[in-house]
Order: sequence, then structure tokens, then C-alpha cells
Amino acid sequence: MLIIMNATATDPQIVRVKERIEELGFTAHDIPGRTRLAIGVTGNKNADDRVYLEGLPGVLQVIPVTKPYKLASRDMHPENSVISVQSVKFGDGNVVMIAGPCAVESRDQTLRIAEQVAERGAQMLRGGAYKPRTSPYSFQGLGEEALKILAEAREKTGLPIVTEVVDPNTAALVGNYVDMLQIGTRNMQNFILLKEVGRVGKPVLLKRGMSATLDETLMSAEYLMAHGCHDVVICERGVRTFTSHARNTLDISIIPALKRVSHLPIIIDPSHSSGQRFSVIPHALAGIGAGADGLIVDVHDKPEEALCDGPQALPPVEFSELMRIAKGVCNAMGKSIGQ
Amino acid sequence: MLIIMNATATDPQIVRVKERIEELGFTAHDIPGRTRLAIGVTGNKNADDRVYLEGLPGVLQVIPVTKPYKLASRDMHPENSVISVQSVKFGDGNVVMIAGPCAVESRDQTLRIAEQVAERGAQMLRGGAYKPRTSPYSFQGLGEEALKILAEAREKTGLPIVTEVVDPNTAALVGNYVDMLQIGTRNMQNFILLKEVGRVGKPVLLKRGMSATLDETLMSAEYLMAHGCHDVVICERGVRTFTSHARNTLDISIIPALKRVSHLPIIIDPSHSSGQRFSVIPHALAGIGAGADGLIVDVHDKPEEALCDGPQALPPVEFSELMRIAKGVCNAMGKSIGQ
Amino acid sequence: MLIIMNATATDPQIVRVKERIEELGFTAHDIPGRTRLAIGVTGNKNADDRVYLEGLPGVLQVIPVTKPYKLASRDMHPENSVISVQSVKFGDGNVVMIAGPCAVESRDQTLRIAEQVAERGAQMLRGGAYKPRTSPYSFQGLGEEALKILAEAREKTGLPIVTEVVDPNTAALVGNYVDMLQIGTRNMQNFILLKEVGRVGKPVLLKRGMSATLDETLMSAEYLMAHGCHDVVICERGVRTFTSHARNTLDISIIPALKRVSHLPIIIDPSHSSGQRFSVIPHALAGIGAGADGLIVDVHDKPEEALCDGPQALPPVEFSELMRIAKGVCNAMGKSIGQ
Amino acid sequence: MLIIMNATATDPQIVRVKERIEELGFTAHDIPGRTRLAIGVTGNKNADDRVYLEGLPGVLQVIPVTKPYKLASRDMHPENSVISVQSVKFGDGNVVMIAGPCAVESRDQTLRIAEQVAERGAQMLRGGAYKPRTSPYSFQGLGEEALKILAEAREKTGLPIVTEVVDPNTAALVGNYVDMLQIGTRNMQNFILLKEVGRVGKPVLLKRGMSATLDETLMSAEYLMAHGCHDVVICERGVRTFTSHARNTLDISIIPALKRVSHLPIIIDPSHSSGQRFSVIPHALAGIGAGADGLIVDVHDKPEEALCDGPQALPPVEFSELMRIAKGVCNAMGKSIGQ
Repeated sequence: MLIIMNATATDPQIVRVKERIEELGFTAHDIPGRTRLAIGVTGNKNADDRVYLEGLPGVLQVIPVTKPYKLASRDMHPENSVISVQSVKFGDGNVVMIAGPCAVESRDQTLRIAEQVAERGAQMLRGGAYKPRTSPYSFQGLGEEALKILAEAREKTGLPIVTEVVDPNTAALVGNYVDMLQIGTRNMQNFILLKEVGRVGKPVLLKRGMSATLDETLMSAEYLMAHGCHDVVICERGVRTFTSHARNTLDISIIPALKRVSHLPIIIDPSHSSGQRFSVIPHALAGIGAGADGLIVDVHDKPEEALCDGPQALPPVEFSELMRIAKGVCNAMGKSIGQ
Repeated sequence: MLIIMNATATDPQIVRVKERIEELGFTAHDIPGRTRLAIGVTGNKNADDRVYLEGLPGVLQVIPVTKPYKLASRDMHPENSVISVQSVKFGDGNVVMIAGPCAVESRDQTLRIAEQVAERGAQMLRGGAYKPRTSPYSFQGLGEEALKILAEAREKTGLPIVTEVVDPNTAALVGNYVDMLQIGTRNMQNFILLKEVGRVGKPVLLKRGMSATLDETLMSAEYLMAHGCHDVVICERGVRTFTSHARNTLDISIIPALKRVSHLPIIIDPSHSSGQRFSVIPHALAGIGAGADGLIVDVHDKPEEALCDGPQALPPVEFSELMRIAKGVCNAMGKSIGQ
Repeated sequence: MLIIMNATATDPQIVRVKERIEELGFTAHDIPGRTRLAIGVTGNKNADDRVYLEGLPGVLQVIPVTKPYKLASRDMHPENSVISVQSVKFGDGNVVMIAGPCAVESRDQTLRIAEQVAERGAQMLRGGAYKPRTSPYSFQGLGEEALKILAEAREKTGLPIVTEVVDPNTAALVGNYVDMLQIGTRNMQNFILLKEVGRVGKPVLLKRGMSATLDETLMSAEYLMAHGCHDVVICERGVRTFTSHARNTLDISIIPALKRVSHLPIIIDPSHSSGQRFSVIPHALAGIGAGADGLIVDVHDKPEEALCDGPQALPPVEFSELMRIAKGVCNAMGKSIGQ
Repeated sequence: MLIIMNATATDPQIVRVKERIEELGFTAHDIPGRTRLAIGVTGNKNADDRVYLEGLPGVLQVIPVTKPYKLASRDMHPENSVISVQSVKFGDGNVVMIAGPCAVESRDQTLRIAEQVAERGAQMLRGGAYKPRTSPYSFQGLGEEALKILAEAREKTGLPIVTEVVDPNTAALVGNYVDMLQIGTRNMQNFILLKEVGRVGKPVLLKRGMSATLDETLMSAEYLMAHGCHDVVICERGVRTFTSHARNTLDISIIPALKRVSHLPIIIDPSHSSGQRFSVIPHALAGIGAGADGLIVDVHDKPEEALCDGPQALPPVEFSELMRIAKGVCNAMGKSIGQ
């Protein structure tokens, strides 16, 4: 922790800050500058300790040095984690392709699309059973019926399943049906849900919040890990910015930045970042170029009739096109993609 | 709904869009422009309908006209709503002052601060029993013990109580103890929680999400209202932007903008927007100037020892100063504040 | 300057960083942490020096301690600056009211509005002679003719004049006609213009850029000051964020934050932040509440016919209403406003 | 143009809006909705016309349909533009590689780096002669001396040169020495500079502003085009968002979005978006994946000693690595890169 004092801080103010550091059991180190004093603090336990110091008179700013996450940090775990979901591996240097409909609308629709994506090389199936919708009047998902349909689709195609959990009370139920649980963007800091999902013990796909920083994203992973789930895959799906030419701004810069400080894998969701079909493939290839460990893509064979996010769904023919180009790109990067 | 076609849209594409509009049971109206065609759509039910049209070939953009919220809209309820929490009224043109500690840390601390804010004119008491913390290693609140302490503080001071609910399973329990339930920023789109809190039937203080738009904020109010709670007060507490000179960017512009389209009251939280004591009073007075119906302010008599957000807590002497100036400002605006 | 090393930094990497610090003529101070080493650096001259260190192997982050601005900093000038424009004073604790049309459209329009705002208590007149327009096809201002009209308006009303300069080649010319030169938002980092305007030697109103940080804003003030103009008033006019319910997001939090680190006055422009008439007065009063040293407001008596920004202009009757309420608010804060 | 009326708009308000539409010479078309009236407006000339309508009583919102740019729009120029800089072509489907030092520091440094990037496949040389620096105390560039050095580097390597212009008074001078003029991020809306640079008649590289929308970026291109320069290449170099894990947020989503509405080529600058060497290659490959027509990359053989932006410069060995992988990625996309 580093404390920057005001240039006009008085001697008694400086003395009081150092006393407070000692009271807290830490050690103070003077770093005199040209116009102001900085005080290095060692011996503190976590970034929270700053709150006991930053309101003191004469203090301009407190800068934490130690990162607030431990389990998610590369400091303690220098090698990349490889997360297994059945036989699928995230973080081994290759690119995992997850595909399927935004929402499970019916048994027919889901089985049909599942087979289409499996044939075209997807390694996992996605499909929403519980949909967190901005409007209370929108389609909210088929619930447990959808989970049964997804399980049947897995049986038919062999693809492991990922689906979103929105309610702490259904986390265990969902865990009985699927292979990987998803925490959605709007719930990234729903800590009650993180704790319950962490306790299920299955791998988790954690979507970054719409305005979550890198540290906040890793702190949410830390919640899952501290409650029993060490198999966490992060997903970047676009963030909120001032722009409106895409549904969200795909922040590819988080991929190398996260890999620098954490051992966890990170994938991207080009469907939710683009929001419109014409830009899904460019977003997907950008993610691969930036070093993503996987993609999760909406596919629908009748997107005009989809109950959720039809405009961003790729029809199977475009999904084939994406797989074809992505294979070449991955190959150029020394990686592979898909089955 | 307005559909903007590409300048290069072909006749068959235009025909297909109009057919699709008819299939959906709506009516199409041509609005020819110099370089492109726009098509007005009438008869649609809600903003969701756009998804059936915006992926069609030749469509550049679909612009919804009808707002997606109904109950929260001023269209159907032109007069301001006045929300009563015991004898306190939000939205009657005056400014409600809510004050108290960020977290209930102990019986002594809470009763002491409750009396200090009551003496200085606060009309309601705030205090966290369940704290949603970014880190799993931070103080998470005293839970039901805190609710009992808050109830005792109400008995001693006569101030109604507001506290945050974070878990759908404790919504009813919290409702038994307090007068107003709070939905926190990170849970603004936790729809499961919104539904459960809506069902409790007590007034709700809904904090705007860190990057929530005005429409999204009102849609979350709509969730509460559609599930039984019509007494919703919105709270602006700062949003995420590119700046770092305050903890969050207090968006005072949402106050007049929300009042233009909704009948619900809106208050501001200058403590969480500023994050540092020196700017709490300026943020508070800015909120009043912009037309806020109330303030919710962190007060602590020993902020250096607070377990949560000490640097932003006002000591009682500064809280008195805020009340003194705020009274004059409210008076100049034809309003009153506090007891 | 503080250097944070990677937890995995090797001894030779640490040795090399310290060598480089010595080569640059600075001194290194170890601050050992639990998981990583931090190195305090003293003796460096400015924030730029970081670039010689932050690319070195093993370095995670370099955090500057000293602020990059000197002349604009409160460190060297602890008292508030009071900037005089003729007899008008910015920064003496009161609120200066500047009002007038967005653009000088004609002699009649300008003289008429000038008299209307003077009668209602404005202390300075604004009016655009050179308009920086997003579109090359929009009205670009009357140029020198407008300067002559403004000078005539000053003669009739006694109000000092502020107008924007957009071209380094006309800075001296504009300086011959008006009392205060304005640097617009889009030119805040047009350093060539800042240098030329600084050399004119008249007071300058510097508008914050649309996404400028506090430090960047003060660095642009520093450019003016380093080139001869010490009479700089900053203007907050709203920044770019994810929201769309106002034309820009008025960032009132910069007012107390700037006053903490700089001695310069700061005013706000509620017309350009709101963009629509209904919210101009709320934005204006919010700015006063946050501690602004003045306001600059668009006023037009025929806003439907204005060639520029009509929807945000206050008609004279609403300007009177603003003055009336603002006087009460200022009075409650121990300040005065207007003539 | 579409006008959305308030749900509570009165009949006289509606009549007045329609009268005003007729006065302006346009035509009104009713689009009745369930709760409110929308009015389609045809016959208007440009997006500016909205200002005459959006302040009228009863009007909630005015939505422009026609885009404000004409020359930059794909509507009037459906085919991609191919921009030639000597023998280098932007927009022909391949990826142009521009590389070189951030700033020209000396003849030796520039000639040395020019040869290194030429050998490794760069097609154009970059190098700053006039540097727009946030601080008045930072290195500001060698000026005309640097232009002579760049011209000599072109002679030695055969690579065409691009360099930034910051002053309208030196635009013609710079045009005498180099092959392509660059408008920097901070000057994207310096309209005086755009006009002067447009008049030079050489191809222009226009960098997107730090918080510029797609429309604003194209309007700045329109300025150049309306003043005589039709050879405009856009450059995305990262925008301002709430994040801090990269120097700027590289917005790859603008690439497909821009190509949808404009015929102009767009390249990316992965050095200024990342700000740190470890993420330059991931940003570069992401840009190629998203469909960029080129890259502009900082290269320096002694980055620790660079006078400007050393931490983001690639050493030649990493530049070779980038070229190697980029060739494979381009190949997979049916493109080529470099010499």
C-alpha cells in the first residue's frame, strides 16, 4: 500500500498517519518526493485495509499494491489452469467452440440445432433454460423442462451442456442436468448466487459484468473458488461504453491483460457483443486473434422466429463459414478449434 | 416502431419486410426519404417485437417508439406518485433525509449513530445488515442480529428503517423487521430478487445499476411493480465512466430526465458517488439542486474504525453542516428538508 | 514514482530495474510486500520519466506520485486564484453568470438578447463568432462581423464578452475585440491553439474535453499558463458516457475534485450538458450546489429559429426564473450571483 | 426524421408541430401508436433540421433517419474505395503494414529502424515530426528536420511515409515531404486543421477521437472530403472507457460497423490501444480478425531510450514474430499482408 500525502500536509498530520499505520500492525516507510511525502506501507493483509487510512487528514490518496484476489491470481499459480468439462478442455492452448440457441424454445428446435452445430464441429452445446430478461413481460425460459431437453440433446449429440443459473435455489437442480453452470452478466456480482453455484462443484462459466473491471471480474471468480469451485472459465461478452454501433463493446484487451495476472482461461461471446448477425464473425475472429481460449456463439436455424435475440443468431450456413475461417486462423496461431 | 431500410435495399427485400409485418399482425406505413425508405409500424405490442424484424435482409435499423415500461411510465399515471414509508413521504415536493451507518457493526454503534442523526433532523435511518462485498474476504454484515438492532434503533428514535436485501430467501424475513427494503446497485438486474422483494409488499428503494440506462432502471422498477410492489423509490448513486476523481460519477441528469417520463420519486446517494468525505456535501447539494426527492447519507461518529466505507462517512458535525445548508437551499427552491 | 514488480520477477530483473533507476539519476527504495516487491523512486523530475522504466522485464506497473502540472497545482499556490475579466471576478467565492446566444446570427438578434440578459442580472455576455460544427454543411458563424456586433453589444450593455477561438491564426484578432477567449471542448487538446491563445494574454475560458480526465484538463490549463496566460477559468460542460437521457453527462464531481488539487476557478455550462430546455435549470442549480464559481447559459428569445442549438436555449422568461432561484440557493451557501 | 410526441401532448401542440413542419417546407405523416403519436417527416435536407422541431411543446424526441454524411456514405458509393499511397493500396481486401518509431529522434535512429521494418515486410514508414503531447514539458518533436530525415529514409528504403500534422500553418510544408498526412486523435474535431489538410490534396490517415462515435468519425472524414481530399483512411486506436487494463479500449466493433455504412478503408493502431508491449500482438491480430485493412505499429530497437511511448514499441524481433503470425492469419482469411 502506498499513501500519497498532500503537499500541504502538516507534521502532526504525518505523525498521526504513521501512528495509525502502527496501530493497525503495519510498518511505514518514508519515500520523500520533491513536493510531497509518500509513505510505503508493508505488512498489511489486503486491499480493504486502505479504508482505515484514506480518510485521515492530510492524505491525498491511498494506492493498493497487492491485488485483492488470491486464488485467481497467477502469483500463486504461475501455470495456466486447464479446466475440463467432460472431455472438453479450456486453457490448454486451443480454442473451444460452444454453440447453440440463445433459449431452449422447444424439444424439436433444440434437438435440431444441437445436431446442426455438432455436425459442424461445435464441442459444447449452449441453450437457455432460465432467461434473465430486462422486461418482466418477455419470455423467461422453459425452466426444468428445458433442462430435460438439453440433457436429451447431450445424449443424442455427445456434446456437454452449459446453461445459465439465475436463482440460488435452483443451482443444485441445474447442476444435476448439465455439465457447466453459467453466471450471466447481470449476476456477476450477485454474491449469493456465486456462493450457491460455487458449492455445486461443477465447472462454471462466469460472464463479465457490463461495467466490471478486470479486478472485479477476478474477485467474482474468487467468490466461486473460495466456495468450492476451482474450475472457472471467464467470458468477455462486451461492455458498456459511449458507442452504439454494436450492442456492446467487445473488449478484446481484457484477454492478454487477464492472462498476465491470472491463470484462468477466458473465452468470448461474439453474439452478445455484436447483437447483429453481420458482425458476429468479425467479433469471433477478433477474439481468437487476441488469444481467447474459446467462443460461445448463438446459432438458430429460423432466427426470424427466435423468442430471444434472433437478430444476433448465426444460421447454420454462416456457422460453417465461421468454423472454416476460424480453423485457418487458429492454425496460423499454432492452435486448433472444434472437433 | 420505425424500420430504416438500407439505401441499397432491393424491392423484394422491402416486400418481404412488409409481409413479415403483416404476418405479425401489425400495419406498415411507408415514409419515403431522399436516399432510403423508412417504414412506420403500428399495432405492435411491445419493444420486444423488434427482434422479429431487425435481422431481415435490407433492414438497417429498427427504432422502437413505445417505451417498454408501462406501470412506471408517466403516460398512464401523469401525476407524481407519493410513496409513504410510515409517516415519511417521498415525492410530495420535499426532500427526505435518510442517514445512518453504512453497516450495522454493533448495538452500541448503531443506537449511538441513530440518535445522532435523529437529533440533527434525519427522517429515516439506514444501516446495512447484509453487505454485498466485492471481496469474499470482506465483512459481510451481521445478518438477522443487525435487523434486531435496527428495530431497536427505530423504537428509540422513531425513525423508520431502510436496509438492503441481497438474498431472495431472506426478503420476507427482512420485511418483518424494517419499513423499506433496498435493492443494491449490483442487484438492480437480479430479477429473481426483484420478484421476491416485490412480493413482500413493503416500499422499496431501488438503486440504479452501475451502468444502467434510464430505461433499464425503470424496467427494474416495473419488475417490482408487476410483482405487487407499487411503492418504488429510485436512487441514483453514481455510474461508471472513464473518470477516477470520484468513486463513481454522480449522474444528476437522470433526475429531470426520469421525472419527465416516470411518476416515481428519485433520491440520490452522495456518499457512494463521492467515496471521500470532502466531496459528500457538494454531491448532496448538487442532487437537491437537480430536483432530487431525497438523500441517503452515510454517517459515522468514528469513521476511521468503520468496517465498511469509513472514508465516505460524514461525522455528525459535518452532517449538521449539511442539514443547515440544505435547509436554505431547499427553502430557495420552495421545498423543505428533514424533521 | 512507485514501481510494482511481478510476483515472479527474478533477481536479475530486479537488479536491472535498480540499475536503470540509478542510470537515470534517481534513487531506489525497496518496499517489500508479501507476494511481490515494490520499489519507491525518488529524485525523478516528472511523470514522463515512467516511460523509461515501465517496459523493463519484470515490471508490472509504474505509478506516478508527482502530478504532471505545476502552475495549475494548488501545491505551489495554496490560495484560490481570483481571475478578473474587467470588473467581473471568478473564484472569489461568488457565482458569475454568463449568458447570451449560442451563435451571433445578426446584429439585431445579438443586441436584443444582450439587453435581455443584462436586465435580468447577467454579468457577462457569450456569443459564438466562429462555430466548430460537427458537420461541414452546418452554419459556421459570422466571423469578424460577429466580433464587431459583440463589441457593440458590450458598449450598449456594459457586459464583458467571451467568445470561442477555433483557429490559431485568428487568436490575436479575437483578442482585439473581446475580454475573454474561449477554448472549446473539441479543441481542449489542440496544443497549437492553446499556445497561440496563451500568447494573447487575455483571460481564457477553457472547456473540458468530452472525455478528458481531471489531470488532462489541468495539463491543458498548464499549456496556457506556460505560454503566458495565467488567468484561466475551467468549464465543465458534460462528458461522454454510456447514457443518452441528456446530451452529455454533467460531471459535477469534478468541481470539488479540481478545487482540491488546483487553485483555478471552475464554472459549468448547463445548456450544453442538458441539450434540452427542460433540464437546463436543474443542471444549473446542481452546478451551484456542487460549488461552481459560475455558469454559462444559452439564452435565445426565438429558440425555434436559432441557427445553432435552439432546443437548449432558455427563453428570457425562464432565464429570469433561473436567476431568481439561483439567488436563493447562492444565498443559502453564503454566496451571491449576478449583478 | 421521426418525431415522437408525448403521450400527454394536446391537440393544439400536435397541430403546431405539423404547422412548423410545413413552414420548413417538409411533409408530415401520422403514425399513430397505442399510447402516443409519432410523426414521420419527409423532404428535410439534413439531420440539422431536427433543431427546429425538438424544442416544440409536446415533442418527446426527434430521431433522424438520414445520416449526416454524404461523401463518406456507402449509399452514394456502394463499392469499397481503394486508396493509393504511391504503390501501396488500402481497401483492396489486403492488409497494409505501416511501421516505424513513434517519434523521429535522430537521423541514425530513424534510418536504422526504417531499414529494420523494411527488411521485415513493412509497406510504409511512420514517424512523428510534430508530437502533440499532453504536457507542455514533454518532447514536442524535431519539426522540419524530422521531415527531411523521413524523406531520406524513404529514399533509402523505398517505403512511402506517413506523419502527423498538428498545425494548419504547416500542412502544406508537411505535404511537400511526405506521402500521407495523419490527423491525430486529439485533433479529429479540429475543423480548421481538417480543412487545411484537406486542401493539401494528399491521402490522409484520420485517427478516431478518444470518444468519437462512428457518425462523428465519418463527419470528420466528410470535412476532409468536402475540402478536396477524397483519399481518406480511418484509423481506430482505442477509445476511452471505464477500464484501465489497457491504455485505451481497442474498439474492434467499429470495423464491421463502419464498413456497413461507409466505403472508406479502416486500419487499426494496436500500439496506442495497448500501451504496453505484451499486448500489442494480441491487439494487432484482433484487428486483422475483425477485418481491418491495415495496421500501424510502433517499432523501436532501443525502446528503453525512446523519447516517446517506448513501453509500447515492439523491438524488431517481436515485429518479425507479428509479421509471421499475421501472414498466416491473413492467408486464412483470403488476404495478404506486407511486402
